[in-house]
Amino acid sequence: MYVAILGFGVVGSGVAEVLEKNAASIKENSNVELKLKKILDIRDFENNPFEKYMTKNFEEILNDDEISVVVETMGGINPAYDFVSKCLEKGKHVVTSNKELVAKKGFELLSVAREKGVNFMFEASVGGGIPIIRPISRCLAGNKIYEIAGILNGTTNFILNKMIVDKMSFPDALKLAQDNGYAEKDPTADIEGHDACRKICILASLAFGSHVYPDGVYTEGITKITLDDVQSAGEMGYVIKLLARTKLLDSGKINIMVSPALVSKDSMLAGVNGVYNACLVRGDMTGDVLMYGKGAGKLATASAVVGDIIDCASNSEKRKFFGWGQEKKDFVADYKEASTALFIRAKAADKAAVHKIALEAFGASNILWSDGEVAFITEEGKEKELLSKLEKSNLETLSVIRVTDY
Amino acid sequence: MYVAILGFGVVGSGVAEVLEKNAASIKENSNVELKLKKILDIRDFENNPFEKYMTKNFEEILNDDEISVVVETMGGINPAYDFVSKCLEKGKHVVTSNKELVAKKGFELLSVAREKGVNFMFEASVGGGIPIIRPISRCLAGNKIYEIAGILNGTTNFILNKMIVDKMSFPDALKLAQDNGYAEKDPTADIEGHDACRKICILASLAFGSHVYPDGVYTEGITKITLDDVQSAGEMGYVIKLLARTKLLDSGKINIMVSPALVSKDSMLAGVNGVYNACLVRGDMTGDVLMYGKGAGKLATASAVVGDIIDCASNSEKRKFFGWGQEKKDFVADYKEASTALFIRAKAADKAAVHKIALEAFGASNILWSDGEVAFITEEGKEKELLSKLEKSNLETLSVIRVTDY
Repeated sequence: MYVAILGFGVVGSGVAEVLEKNAASIKENSNVELKLKKILDIRDFENNPFEKYMTKNFEEILNDDEISVVVETMGGINPAYDFVSKCLEKGKHVVTSNKELVAKKGFELLSVAREKGVNFMFEASVGGGIPIIRPISRCLAGNKIYEIAGILNGTTNFILNKMIVDKMSFPDALKLAQDNGYAEKDPTADIEGHDACRKICILASLAFGSHVYPDGVYTEGITKITLDDVQSAGEMGYVIKLLARTKLLDSGKINIMVSPALVSKDSMLAGVNGVYNACLVRGDMTGDVLMYGKGAGKLATASAVVGDIIDCASNSEKRKFFGWGQEKKDFVADYKEASTALFIRAKAADKAAVHKIALEAFGASNILWSDGEVAFITEEGKEKELLSKLEKSNLETLSVIRVTDY
Repeated sequence: MYVAILGFGVVGSGVAEVLEKNAASIKENSNVELKLKKILDIRDFENNPFEKYMTKNFEEILNDDEISVVVETMGGINPAYDFVSKCLEKGKHVVTSNKELVAKKGFELLSVAREKGVNFMFEASVGGGIPIIRPISRCLAGNKIYEIAGILNGTTNFILNKMIVDKMSFPDALKLAQDNGYAEKDPTADIEGHDACRKICILASLAFGSHVYPDGVYTEGITKITLDDVQSAGEMGYVIKLLARTKLLDSGKINIMVSPALVSKDSMLAGVNGVYNACLVRGDMTGDVLMYGKGAGKLATASAVVGDIIDCASNSEKRKFFGWGQEKKDFVADYKEASTALFIRAKAADKAAVHKIALEAFGASNILWSDGEVAFITEEGKEKELLSKLEKSNLETLSVIRVTDY
């Protein structure tokens, strides 16, 4: 079966490498023969082992009837969306690692794929090399999934981890991540939570059956997290993680958000260090299931793409069904109505007065005092009510971070 | 699509329950309609909601052409093997949770399934509700898997956890596990490692492509682990887990064994508490991937069975390929030739002499002294050479446990 790759960047070149290096074991374990035929890129790649496959003309791939699986690893919406639509229309299977494309155009592209009887697959779009999409849509298909919480961005996890373990400041940790190639020069998409947001949108759409678009999802990054937050949380038995999470409510609506959050040190999510990712899925039958591994990286992500190619190749005449319908109106509930506990750090010049507020207004537990400051965890309540109480209290608030029960 | 269940025990009744309870969400998410038609059991179940499906006659199921998927949840080899073979021969898909059947007859049954163009699926046979089989055989198909290490038995993990956290003795922890229904009256299969052995055989056969039978696998249980072992290991930064593990060697052979082992507290495997299970898979492209969740239990295991039924139903005309070939001669290497470090606990009446042996013979690290005893970790070496050195030394050994680098 012939394969083409659109975009010879990090992931695309990784796919070419995996296809070549593991051809024999793929044949042996999966009974399919995969042959690379074309690679589309506008750049020149001289003296590259894959030079002979390169083309700058998309039509060459689109109109080559021998090519039945097209891999899209260009990223972004333009021209990826146009190219992918055309390939599906032509009856080619498409496999992508492009989370922005899937998060913004998943329903549309799955509809075209359904019409044409081909597959549109995207295991690599969430969690790099970690099996997440297939476990959620296949292995747990007997379940009603009601909650997902993930550490889905390796860059921010690396930064937070450096703050926790090495007591590095946020700017220093970000600099180190950039020096190590874990963060882009412009790190906005990572540290502001947009990358994690796209991924949780994909998972929510899959698990709950209606497309959830990134635009409607409350997204908060980690730029305001300080060393003091990390250390106070640590003394209380928590670590701070950037969590992307979604939950099906009794009302039929969902909560979905990306934000920093306190996670108990006893949780499996707390053990996810460095650039690793993890995704916790709660099903009515299985209880908690967690998948963990490298959430990014050339070969890890490429291997997830190749897993999908193999699936397309071994089931080429049969379409995979994803229960991913169109957007539902008012499906996403107001995040401020969600129930949560809050970690609050504040100035505490008048210790007795602050103590009284913490206890009486917030039923505080885990109260921690240090040099004129206090940190505590509130009782659970509606977020907006807790915040309104906080505004009315005379506390000089330094930080407010959500607390989870994962 | 009509389904029959062989064996109305814990898992079988769970499958009936999941099929009924989640019928609507299964239809919505996977586009298949599953209808229970018959349940085989020799016992009587009066006033049971599933009474109308019960039969004591296997032929009624075998000869019912409407039934296209048969679920086997009887356990054991007889008559499960006979029944499953006959169903496959008749062109029915079979889904099983029976690890003994898969570990001992997997290759044979997959061969019959291949001949007849039907599926033989067994996600529920390892790790209960945790997605493991499909991630290994599908998601990671682009990888060359070279190592697997799992906590695959919840009973022993519960017992060890009680010893670690609550300082309970082994007999007390076993009693508690029995009182909680986590351990059988006759706990041999769990505590001697046989259950974990069957599961690692299934994973090794899948990952390495040749049937590995339980008979040829070195299996050591947890009955000899003492509180002193657990505590000394804890002070050195390790927890003791019952690990089932296998590794592809450069020679093309594999190491495979079940035994207690020291795992660093920093490892994700160390965070697996209570009756939970986890499986770490090392691929050449992905690096470490870990799947975690409830390794047993009625509904968790049943949900894995139902996931396989859905897969059979949505791909009924297409066989899933498993790269699971027949046994290879001399495929399993002598475990004593494997390289490992050892945790050694010994009497130390003569501290100076013992210190000298620990350092000079074993290049010991982490040396821990207490009331006339010593515990230390040796340098890595061939297991048989380390043990032969130990025999020649004058140490009065109390415990020897392998140390891992997971």
